[in-house]
Amino acid sequence: MAEKRLKLCGWGFEGDGLSKEDTDILLERVRTRHGIEAAEPRYAPTLEAIELPKPKTDIPAALQAFSENAVYDRATHTYGKSYPDYLNIFDGNFTNAPDFVAYPRNEDEIEAALDWATGARVAVIPFGGGSSVVGGVEPAVGTGFAGAISLDLTKLDQVVEIDRTSRAARIQGGIRVPAMEAALKPHGLTMRHFPQSMDMATLGGMIATRSGGHYATLYTHIDDFVESLRTVTPNGVMESRRLPGSGAGPSPDRLMIGSEGALGIITEAWMRLQDRPTHRASSTVLFDDYTKAADAVRAVSQAGLFPANLRLLDAAEAYNNGFGDGRQSVLVLNFESADHPLDAWLARAREICGDYGGTYDTDTAQDPDAHRSGAAGAWRKAFIEMPHYREILVSIGVVADTIETAITWDAFPVFHEKVMAAAHAAIEEATGRPGTVSCRFTHVYPDGPAPYYSLQGAGRHGALDEQWRHIKAKASDAVIEHGGTITHHHAVGRDHMPWYVRQRPDTFGAALAGAKARLDPAGILNPGVIVPV
Amino acid sequence: MAEKRLKLCGWGFEGDGLSKEDTDILLERVRTRHGIEAAEPRYAPTLEAIELPKPKTDIPAALQAFSENAVYDRATHTYGKSYPDYLNIFDGNFTNAPDFVAYPRNEDEIEAALDWATGARVAVIPFGGGSSVVGGVEPAVGTGFAGAISLDLTKLDQVVEIDRTSRAARIQGGIRVPAMEAALKPHGLTMRHFPQSMDMATLGGMIATRSGGHYATLYTHIDDFVESLRTVTPNGVMESRRLPGSGAGPSPDRLMIGSEGALGIITEAWMRLQDRPTHRASSTVLFDDYTKAADAVRAVSQAGLFPANLRLLDAAEAYNNGFGDGRQSVLVLNFESADHPLDAWLARAREICGDYGGTYDTDTAQDPDAHRSGAAGAWRKAFIEMPHYREILVSIGVVADTIETAITWDAFPVFHEKVMAAAHAAIEEATGRPGTVSCRFTHVYPDGPAPYYSLQGAGRHGALDEQWRHIKAKASDAVIEHGGTITHHHAVGRDHMPWYVRQRPDTFGAALAGAKARLDPAGILNPGVIVPV
Repeated sequence: MAEKRLKLCGWGFEGDGLSKEDTDILLERVRTRHGIEAAEPRYAPTLEAIELPKPKTDIPAALQAFSENAVYDRATHTYGKSYPDYLNIFDGNFTNAPDFVAYPRNEDEIEAALDWATGARVAVIPFGGGSSVVGGVEPAVGTGFAGAISLDLTKLDQVVEIDRTSRAARIQGGIRVPAMEAALKPHGLTMRHFPQSMDMATLGGMIATRSGGHYATLYTHIDDFVESLRTVTPNGVMESRRLPGSGAGPSPDRLMIGSEGALGIITEAWMRLQDRPTHRASSTVLFDDYTKAADAVRAVSQAGLFPANLRLLDAAEAYNNGFGDGRQSVLVLNFESADHPLDAWLARAREICGDYGGTYDTDTAQDPDAHRSGAAGAWRKAFIEMPHYREILVSIGVVADTIETAITWDAFPVFHEKVMAAAHAAIEEATGRPGTVSCRFTHVYPDGPAPYYSLQGAGRHGALDEQWRHIKAKASDAVIEHGGTITHHHAVGRDHMPWYVRQRPDTFGAALAGAKARLDPAGILNPGVIVPV
Repeated sequence: MAEKRLKLCGWGFEGDGLSKEDTDILLERVRTRHGIEAAEPRYAPTLEAIELPKPKTDIPAALQAFSENAVYDRATHTYGKSYPDYLNIFDGNFTNAPDFVAYPRNEDEIEAALDWATGARVAVIPFGGGSSVVGGVEPAVGTGFAGAISLDLTKLDQVVEIDRTSRAARIQGGIRVPAMEAALKPHGLTMRHFPQSMDMATLGGMIATRSGGHYATLYTHIDDFVESLRTVTPNGVMESRRLPGSGAGPSPDRLMIGSEGALGIITEAWMRLQDRPTHRASSTVLFDDYTKAADAVRAVSQAGLFPANLRLLDAAEAYNNGFGDGRQSVLVLNFESADHPLDAWLARAREICGDYGGTYDTDTAQDPDAHRSGAAGAWRKAFIEMPHYREILVSIGVVADTIETAITWDAFPVFHEKVMAAAHAAIEEATGRPGTVSCRFTHVYPDGPAPYYSLQGAGRHGALDEQWRHIKAKASDAVIEHGGTITHHHAVGRDHMPWYVRQRPDTFGAALAGAKARLDPAGILNPGVIVPV
């Protein structure tokens, strides 16, 4: 099988993307929404057209067998998939390109890379799916280093061992989700952790960024699926014991989960898996009143029913994603099980929704293909295609971002009002025109929802970076000021650091810096991320 | 209300204990089991009869308002509730008594204590319920300190604030479980985290030791109930944000959860709570074949039904606790909900048990008092009284301990065989006679059980400490050698440190030491626990 090549600009691999027809529909819809006149979109440069800075460091002999410094390798490892990343690519700005890309095939090669980098004081930026939307993989390490390289982990792509009895598997960190699921399928197993980045995302990347997945309740983050971890640090290998649970000191795994490459390289994990679901029961519930809809979601999440999907889309979000009438909120409710029919579960959840004024169709219940039809199906299609939208928005000068967070239920009403207001105001300040802000709950907890805000405004080519920065900063300020987290599942990266250091206790920052000093004494691992330089 | 006084020796407060009748029944049962002739039991000394070493340090002026160095205070803060603790008390050995006990009433007083101790290089041993069974609260700090004090947190005993909407409360670290539950009850809320130590245990102590509670599945450890933490360290206060979920870096709370007082003093936590259950459905399931019983438990735990109780008692364990016929394994199965009837849940769980040869009565299903009757009721009574047994065993020279762990399902059969064999052999080696070893599952996960082994043998007064050490070491060696954790929920303390350092990755040990160096630069907090001195 020929290896897939990463796109220089945009989501996925060369050849991936929306059809011409879908692109035209989307362009028309976005232009109409923002009153933008049709004009030829801007195009991203080709690989041949861009110029990279001269590398600060050559590939040393010890790493030559698995490193590359061709334009393709350096350029495709300069950025992730954020809005400003795309802007920079459109502008041909590759100032922070890595000096070279190492593609280690085993732990020995990772150790060789870390040893050399520690000695040479070269920054090492771990690169998995490359799907960071928060500046997590850009080698923007400042002037304190003799160079910076990208450490691409995607050659570590095997499911190594399967324990069917305990429903767990030992899996390498660089495997992408589709390959992992394909390897698990013959055993009747699945991780069922499907972030929106699933086409590209790697297991190690998802663990390092505490990704949020398929399950809207209970198993929301990948954290709970981690049974044990194996990590290579500049100071040696850290491997935790496979255990279903333990009370022996602070969890070693929880220190590495969310460390975003700043403490070590996740090379392997034993992951807890699921049986493939055979029973499904779904409803789409409509609410006239958004506040009551949120109350219904709270009540369902506190009832101990644990639906797989409990995603509330506000009226604008629903409409933008191709369903609903633009006035009603839409709740996508779905149960799934590999063990038992779900009649009792769905009936009680519907009853609760009814208590809060929700109305629902009864047709789709118990349909094993319910997740592929109706509103759930429409949502599924939109969810899968969404990552491709961003590059299109950039091309026609629409400024856009997403702000995702979590907040307790008591604080949610005021929080939501303030964040919505701040986002609207920021778009208008930046662009001079009102924009759109919509909200969905991606995940829900008994003590609060994880709201995800989508922001768009009619920007101006040439000013988009400044406009984006203004909107991002104002919306993030509101999130932090009113009690939320700067990220529920997109991670911190470089973009969120100013708000992360406001969110996390300084004393914890000191503890993390103390831990990093022991694991990575030269401070070469993803500098500036999680632990300030 | 007059303040309860701690017992010098034994479980609970002065006046607590088994009735004379229950004590006699127990003595008779244990003597019969081990073939011990009736003789006058040994008695623990009274406060008046014991002698304490001269304090190394006096109470400094800054701490005088809230510190005591009377014999009662020093003696009751010298030990926890382990078997060797009781032996030492019986022997009148108070070598490691704290120089004084500080009872801070607020964070300022905690900071004053830590400031003074840091300057004076005096070790500080946090003391909550004092119910450690692993040497977690004994001021055995070696010669590297100018003294050692016990920091008793039980004056921080308030439920400060309740958020009914998010079902959470801000609670001080020194409150005991019964007082906390009493304060929550009028709000219709409960934490429903009931370790066997619940009469004494404090919230902060349970968090610091990752205690295991009421729920046999899903919410097993207290970890998941922690919404945010406030901790006082020698280097300042660490307070995490109240969040239902977050992906912003490694979890600050997870570093403190399980830190056993070595990184800071937990003064407050926002805890996730439950509605008080109104629906219950239970069965007692009997199995002739223990292996099949374990398989049934695995299947139920992997089915996504989440019973509150799923405790499998092997035949000996069931019989010793007053139910079963000594040949069959007994599974205590119970569902509870504050939201919905549980017919569908129980029916499916029973069906699974039936598939593995389990037989069950149908009478108790749906009885709201099911947890107080039948085998579940017998188990409940035994569970509550069990902590009182240990002091009685010591008095008649029975050597006893518990080994609790967790292991993946694939490894469980061999692991169980090896640990049982090692325990039996160790008792016989130590005492010259066969003893008894029984097993129950306290908690169960989709990827493995948490087995809890109870060990007893006929020891000899004067040799009990040596006999206990031999048995503890051999059984712990087997646990570590065959892949288990040295503790699922009793914590590490000083007793488990030799096996903890074999279990946890050395690299993680280095990271923890780095974190501790930043939070507790003088290394005064619970020295020797979690982070080796």
